[in-house]
Amino acid sequence: MSEEFSRANGRTLLSYTPDLRLFDATIRDGGLMNDFYFEDDFVKALYKANVKAGVDYMEFGYRASKDMFDPEKFGKWKFTSDEDIRAIVGDNDTDLKISIMADAGRTDYKDDIRKKDESPVDIIRVATYIHTIPTAIAMVEDAHEKGYETSVNIMAISKSSGVEIESALELLGQSPVDILYLVDSYGSLYPEQVRRLCDRFLECAEKYGKKVGFHAHNNQQLAFANTTEAIIKGVCYVDGTVSSLGRGAGNCPLELLLGFLKNPKYRIDPILSFIEKEMIPLKESGLKWGYDIPYVLTGILNQHPRTAIQFQKEDRKDYRQFYIDLMDNF
Amino acid sequence: MSEEFSRANGRTLLSYTPDLRLFDATIRDGGLMNDFYFEDDFVKALYKANVKAGVDYMEFGYRASKDMFDPEKFGKWKFTSDEDIRAIVGDNDTDLKISIMADAGRTDYKDDIRKKDESPVDIIRVATYIHTIPTAIAMVEDAHEKGYETSVNIMAISKSSGVEIESALELLGQSPVDILYLVDSYGSLYPEQVRRLCDRFLECAEKYGKKVGFHAHNNQQLAFANTTEAIIKGVCYVDGTVSSLGRGAGNCPLELLLGFLKNPKYRIDPILSFIEKEMIPLKESGLKWGYDIPYVLTGILNQHPRTAIQFQKEDRKDYRQFYIDLMDNF
Repeated sequence: MSEEFSRANGRTLLSYTPDLRLFDATIRDGGLMNDFYFEDDFVKALYKANVKAGVDYMEFGYRASKDMFDPEKFGKWKFTSDEDIRAIVGDNDTDLKISIMADAGRTDYKDDIRKKDESPVDIIRVATYIHTIPTAIAMVEDAHEKGYETSVNIMAISKSSGVEIESALELLGQSPVDILYLVDSYGSLYPEQVRRLCDRFLECAEKYGKKVGFHAHNNQQLAFANTTEAIIKGVCYVDGTVSSLGRGAGNCPLELLLGFLKNPKYRIDPILSFIEKEMIPLKESGLKWGYDIPYVLTGILNQHPRTAIQFQKEDRKDYRQFYIDLMDNF
Repeated sequence: MSEEFSRANGRTLLSYTPDLRLFDATIRDGGLMNDFYFEDDFVKALYKANVKAGVDYMEFGYRASKDMFDPEKFGKWKFTSDEDIRAIVGDNDTDLKISIMADAGRTDYKDDIRKKDESPVDIIRVATYIHTIPTAIAMVEDAHEKGYETSVNIMAISKSSGVEIESALELLGQSPVDILYLVDSYGSLYPEQVRRLCDRFLECAEKYGKKVGFHAHNNQQLAFANTTEAIIKGVCYVDGTVSSLGRGAGNCPLELLLGFLKNPKYRIDPILSFIEKEMIPLKESGLKWGYDIPYVLTGILNQHPRTAIQFQKEDRKDYRQFYIDLMDNF
């Protein structure tokens, strides 16, 4: 089809919006599947591929509290020190910006996050549930004062009521946060729900001068479709992970986004090379993630994927029984 | 999210449309990956699962010309005789309707299709490219006279211009065909393109008293999203295949459709059982299909998947080189 398709905000399939930002979350979301034990060579290869592909941000991991999580039990990307990042990126003399994620209530942010001019990190993304928004805002204020770009990522949005979302957005609008991220943690949202939620987020963003981001999960093979719909709506930050690597069914494949986006700065071929050289061996090493029936079922039922992850770990195949058990815990 | 979402035609996420028909094309589209060599036990198990799941139609295979295709080189579901179907379904004393597909120009339809009252088949679906529409119409007229429900499935719609599509729809509108099927053979369409094409098909259908169907391919993980968008638009016939089994990247997963549709007559659990008992062994037997990078690339480039199927058969992993070669043949 050579013709262009009209869209409410003037975006067409062949146009692009220069303010769209592509966010690679492979190490951070993927780390949830291997307890953050990625080799430096893997992370460095991904960093180089992202730079070549024109990806705008790369998230290296969480900065979790070492008081709450035992460094003996997790790889370093659970804690993602500035030094660990420097070992990969040096002075990061590139256009790629560097992100870390901090969970509301599980980060010693006052001590563990230095001032931006002493750190290779560019943006702090605070992950929060609706009920921890006040904590998230305190963290954002701290990061903002230290000089970072900030984002608040509202997880499990599909479990929240319209009233809660309105109230959370109003609080965040009045905070110094730069980006409001909509997170479909359970991969349960259909495109029309994403469109509706984007409208709400965008309305608040416009009122308070914020940007909106979207992070999808692929339980129902809707991560890419939901992300493109969010882009059409006007969302400016979108997350992807290479080969969908991420919790459970994984995320929106970065390679599909690179195939869709028309900004000439983006290139898919460095990510194709990374997949053949790094992701295939990782998969062959036995790490299991990605679209499969158990994740479909938790997605349909709007549940956390933990039961499905356990089902996959046990190498079970009794999908029907699993479904019956899930319905029992609805 | 408990609230309902307004839609142009009044359909909501919790409502359902009683005239929606779910079409299982597993054997027919899947046969393209194993030359139609399915065991009777497999086909019978699928038939039983479909009946239990409330699926409306099951397509058993093609009725290809034995003059053009050597029966020594293909399994029986390439030819799908009435006798072969009867061996599975007996008198088919169920609500499930039985379909066969006939390719325009590759079927000896005058001789090979009997009158409906002598056959277990309920519907003849004629697959055609735009340029063979006149042949497709002759086949539809023959099938209609013999007493069958009929459909014309316009393949590779993403390669046709708007003018060609208008002209094809006008011809079909004036024919006795019952259903106009939109087929995204290359898995290259994005949801907004599907919505636009559905509008065109639905406009013609309304004018001439036809129904519209949609058949997706999953190259860009958009088969399910595109199908749900088509349903929201007002399409009444939608195709799925169990575990996506179908050519190349495969089709819209039937199990996702069963999870989405709200008509109480549909049940997902018989298909979950079929997957654990039949599809897992089929996959383990070495049959390869489904979403993978080579299919992403032919999808993005709006090309026939044959080069990607060959790439997969050769067990190649040099995705970047494959992409460079594809761009050369754009």
